[in-house]
Amino acid sequence: MEIKLAKSYGFCFGVKRAIKIAEELKDASTIGPLIHNNEEINRLKNDFNVATTKDFKEFQANPTKKAVIRTHGIEKQDLEVLKEMDVEIVNATCPYVTNPQNIVKNMSEEGYQIVIFGDEKHPEVKGVKSYSTSEAIVVANVEELQQKHIKRKVAIVSQTTKKVSEFEKVVCYLLNHAKEVRVFNTICNATFENQDAVRELSSEADIMIIIGGKNSSNTKELYNISKLSCHDSYHIENESELQAKWFDGKKLCGISAGASTPDWIIEKIISKIKEICV
Amino acid sequence: MEIKLAKSYGFCFGVKRAIKIAEELKDASTIGPLIHNNEEINRLKNDFNVATTKDFKEFQANPTKKAVIRTHGIEKQDLEVLKEMDVEIVNATCPYVTNPQNIVKNMSEEGYQIVIFGDEKHPEVKGVKSYSTSEAIVVANVEELQQKHIKRKVAIVSQTTKKVSEFEKVVCYLLNHAKEVRVFNTICNATFENQDAVRELSSEADIMIIIGGKNSSNTKELYNISKLSCHDSYHIENESELQAKWFDGKKLCGISAGASTPDWIIEKIISKIKEICV
Repeated sequence: MEIKLAKSYGFCFGVKRAIKIAEELKDASTIGPLIHNNEEINRLKNDFNVATTKDFKEFQANPTKKAVIRTHGIEKQDLEVLKEMDVEIVNATCPYVTNPQNIVKNMSEEGYQIVIFGDEKHPEVKGVKSYSTSEAIVVANVEELQQKHIKRKVAIVSQTTKKVSEFEKVVCYLLNHAKEVRVFNTICNATFENQDAVRELSSEADIMIIIGGKNSSNTKELYNISKLSCHDSYHIENESELQAKWFDGKKLCGISAGASTPDWIIEKIISKIKEICV
Repeated sequence: MEIKLAKSYGFCFGVKRAIKIAEELKDASTIGPLIHNNEEINRLKNDFNVATTKDFKEFQANPTKKAVIRTHGIEKQDLEVLKEMDVEIVNATCPYVTNPQNIVKNMSEEGYQIVIFGDEKHPEVKGVKSYSTSEAIVVANVEELQQKHIKRKVAIVSQTTKKVSEFEKVVCYLLNHAKEVRVFNTICNATFENQDAVRELSSEADIMIIIGGKNSSNTKELYNISKLSCHDSYHIENESELQAKWFDGKKLCGISAGASTPDWIIEKIISKIKEICV
């Protein structure tokens, strides 16, 4: 049986970059969990002594510590407090998140009303919003925007993981209510690239193994897409869930993984499949 | 029988302004017909000696003449040629058209690729396009845009008479293909205000008289809207077409007029209706 990985799967560019930064730094603390995968957090803790700090103010008690800002970024005012402490700050904010932070800063300084399309409580959005020099509007959909007063000149950015079709609706509402709308498409395609790749691979494979946390919504989405073209699709978290009978008579096994699944978990599962199919 | 005018009808702000300019100026020539209504052109000719010049180069033979630039505006290079002649230039370009001309100039100077949503052959669009310092793209729909190469930074304006729903489609395509899109909603609501007003009035009137050229597409559109709510809707060009029997037993007569219909034609028709219904 042939095993084939999807063209795009697992960690995105920004997460890979942040993990590499944390590994190279060693003995550091990340502000909030670096990714939503406990096994990976444990590996970083055990192999590189990278701890997870819930609140950056904890550094006050331990000021010689190295602080890693995770991919989501942090709020501008928090960064300023952190800078006043005696802490080595290493910024692992994803460049795709730094971009809307800068846009929001510049556009608000130029007098544009700032609209952020995203979830108000998401750390990335909180961070981006904090860079606005005027009161920014955060909306998750058009209905929320309808409750807001729109000025003549508006600049809009999006949370990186939002769907472009929803972003379009918000932009269309704005262009009906403002004279000028500066649209910055800050959506990152990583999530959608994984989805496209599963769509492609599942149409040729006769068994698909989708790897990721059972509560990971992006992994579930990959599984649902896979199921559409490949009846024998399975969503697993680790190699212990694999069943030999799944592979009986199969010729091509496709593999994909959610955005929080590290490569080493994927590799362990592939080894186990090879064992089963010997 | 009561006669009621639609809340909005006939000439838009820009056309009214241009006619006033031509009347006050006297003995002038407009570059191209001021509006698409021969009766009005004749009135301006007879009462104010305002002629219509097909080609502005005709001024060369008669350099002391006053030249009126009509609401659509003219191309930048033509204006420059005109300025070199010994001609008094009076600019009656609609301010709603001067606006996209200025935007296109400034945005192209700032390095944005210019996209104009409109009809390439329309004089307004030709004029707006001429203000771009780089090669501007003119598209009438998304399909045409798909044939074009889109740069990273794009600025878009619309022909003033386009539908916003179509403009939205073009903007959505752009935001999927550019990193920054500056959207300037330069659509003028005048046409749509006349339509909204007919929609409202025709739902309460029991006869509707829609006045305008039989080949005027915006008048035909008003008639079609009126017909939806008021069965007894009539599209006429002048008072000779009115028939007394139309008004038998009617209580409320609604009146509207296309964008090229001057007030004095509307007034003549209203007088005639009053005569019929005495």
